Amino acid sequence: MTTATRFSQALDPVFFDRVQERVRGRLAEENLDAILTDDPEDVAYLTGFFHHPCERPVAVWLAADGPTVLLTPRLERENAERQQARARIVSYGEFPGTEAPFATLAAEVDRVGGGGGLRVGFTTHMTHERLAAARRELPAADYAPTTIVTRARYVKFDEEIALHREAARVTDVMLGAGVALVREAVAANGRLPSEAELASGVTGIGVSMMYAEHDDVVVVSPLAGGLVYAGANSAFPHGLPSGYRLSPGDTFMLSLGCAVGGRFVEGERTFVLGKPTPDQFRFHDTIRRAQSVGGQAIRPGARCREANAACLAVIEEAGLGEYIRHRQGHGIGLGMHEPPWLEAGDDTLLEAGMIVSNEPGIYIPRHAGYRISDSMLVTESGSEALTAFPRGLADCTIEL
Amino acid sequence: MTTATRFSQALDPVFFDRVQERVRGRLAEENLDAILTDDPEDVAYLTGFFHHPCERPVAVWLAADGPTVLLTPRLERENAERQQARARIVSYGEFPGTEAPFATLAAEVDRVGGGGGLRVGFTTHMTHERLAAARRELPAADYAPTTIVTRARYVKFDEEIALHREAARVTDVMLGAGVALVREAVAANGRLPSEAELASGVTGIGVSMMYAEHDDVVVVSPLAGGLVYAGANSAFPHGLPSGYRLSPGDTFMLSLGCAVGGRFVEGERTFVLGKPTPDQFRFHDTIRRAQSVGGQAIRPGARCREANAACLAVIEEAGLGEYIRHRQGHGIGLGMHEPPWLEAGDDTLLEAGMIVSNEPGIYIPRHAGYRISDSMLVTESGSEALTAFPRGLADCTIEL
Repeated sequence: MTTATRFSQALDPVFFDRVQERVRGRLAEENLDAILTDDPEDVAYLTGFFHHPCERPVAVWLAADGPTVLLTPRLERENAERQQARARIVSYGEFPGTEAPFATLAAEVDRVGGGGGLRVGFTTHMTHERLAAARRELPAADYAPTTIVTRARYVKFDEEIALHREAARVTDVMLGAGVALVREAVAANGRLPSEAELASGVTGIGVSMMYAEHDDVVVVSPLAGGLVYAGANSAFPHGLPSGYRLSPGDTFMLSLGCAVGGRFVEGERTFVLGKPTPDQFRFHDTIRRAQSVGGQAIRPGARCREANAACLAVIEEAGLGEYIRHRQGHGIGLGMHEPPWLEAGDDTLLEAGMIVSNEPGIYIPRHAGYRISDSMLVTESGSEALTAFPRGLADCTIEL
Repeated sequence: MTTATRFSQALDPVFFDRVQERVRGRLAEENLDAILTDDPEDVAYLTGFFHHPCERPVAVWLAADGPTVLLTPRLERENAERQQARARIVSYGEFPGTEAPFATLAAEVDRVGGGGGLRVGFTTHMTHERLAAARRELPAADYAPTTIVTRARYVKFDEEIALHREAARVTDVMLGAGVALVREAVAANGRLPSEAELASGVTGIGVSMMYAEHDDVVVVSPLAGGLVYAGANSAFPHGLPSGYRLSPGDTFMLSLGCAVGGRFVEGERTFVLGKPTPDQFRFHDTIRRAQSVGGQAIRPGARCREANAACLAVIEEAGLGEYIRHRQGHGIGLGMHEPPWLEAGDDTLLEAGMIVSNEPGIYIPRHAGYRISDSMLVTESGSEALTAFPRGLADCTIEL
């Protein structure tokens, strides 16, 4: 089925040995003997197993000595095997179960010589319910919250960057397809699409492209998609596509993205349908400049809060600070949003291999929102936008 | 925009007063002065505010005395106002922020006379990170885990049942549309659809139908959609649609659903493409009987574990127990999966007004999976399937 020109989304199972070694190598820093995580993104990162999270616990136990153990419900066992999860798989019957799911993990940990007296770091993303259930079954262990896996994910491996690059290529195609759908409706003098129709159209194109060109498609939710909002709806930064139909004169936003091998990219552009008014030009130009300055501020050795400050200062200096609703950006990887945060409260130093979004925006109530976003790879000398779709208003105006 | 024949997904804001009174009325049972929840479904249940969950906390503080408070990031404030969230809204700037998000909530709670010395129940779905952040800002309070809101959601209000019924109607249309897409391809002697194409086709039909017929569409993720798997892929209960194309002789499953006003319904049917073999007939007939017996066992006064046992016994008695991978079903409401669980480990008594899935399945490795599911409303005298699509193999065979 694989041909020379097809792209495989699956990573080689031995890749996960290197991932696990990275995490194992950091346990001593926090005086930990093992890590316990039920974060679905951590599970995919450490073992390659992707699943639909639900109430049934799926968790990884990674010890300084001894095998990595993956706990799944019976329901997911064959699915984990099919995905060649890089771990010893143990499975419980059902949830909630007459035997506790974590008892199955505890039995395996005991068998391989762990458990009692160990100092276990658990991910801070674990819910109270899950953590309490784990502690009941492994009571002899000493538990401490940790963000070791979360932070191990900051700097991407080359294999992960290749997935992000392909996700960026698909995202650029989706952005172009969204514009084409609007242009075709205009050219045909037909009914303009609604937000929901446009969202569905570009999602279908992204998904179809991946199945047509990729092998071993890793389906995450969402595989490809995004938010499409127009006119006054776009003034709600996390609004959702509605049945609102685009109208002449509207500002509208295509906030798209996809995941390749589970690795996300976002690409967002703001368009004007018809000849821009002076206000539309000023708003668009301001965020374009903020995004450009913000991109230059993303470089190794800079702190997240410094990049954020440089980026948002452009908006403040343009006298539009009252329309800011959010920070410059966020980390992106197996999570669509993950730390570090390009925000005033995050002191993290940027390093080569990190990927962060650069997405300043302004939101003018009852008029529209303006946001431009690229997923930026931090390089040795600065940063590189993975998505390439043109950003300026000249390229983002759709003539009527 | 609203006409007499359109269906509104939005609930009247005063509905949420009754929801809050139900929860408030239960605080004394656990000696609680207030509830803190950041579960997105709880937030929607208590206030009517739907949002895309992310790292920025959104939480509800509901006290025995005093107003209900909704904490949002600045980014979501106008969105919450637009949705007429039934609470006093307080907003923090950004995440992680130079001031802690929960400090904004603490200030409001102090202002209205709460905070110090109160006994606060927090949802067991809260992550360690969130709970630690809340406790840092409200240190004088005494915290206890609680499932009060989770359990308050078990028995649905009439207004919620109306939303579930409409979701069931959309789901039935989607099931019919999926069958029609396959039949059309067969009739045209054309290429059969792939799993992903079929999933995309039925999703588009469900979403379009809601925008065409409903006002105030509440967009949750997913609004409408589902899993489509065929042949050996369907033997993975939580597999995901792939590029695999349906082939003559395949068993295939349409596992569909949607949310209306945020309330979910699932409807799942198993089909055979061509004349069923004796094995296909036996597998299908067994789960159909198990589902029928399971549906009769869902009635007020029965325990969840008893319904589960009656349902799965049919499969065991048919000699197919080795192919069971999961319980009979789960609660459904604002959550696609929520308690109670129709499983051996859940003693909950079923009550009129609860909605649970009835979805026994068997999974034969390298052959296929068989599952039939309806969302069942527990009534005064028994239970009622909300979805109506035919279940038997005669109706679920697609002739070639």
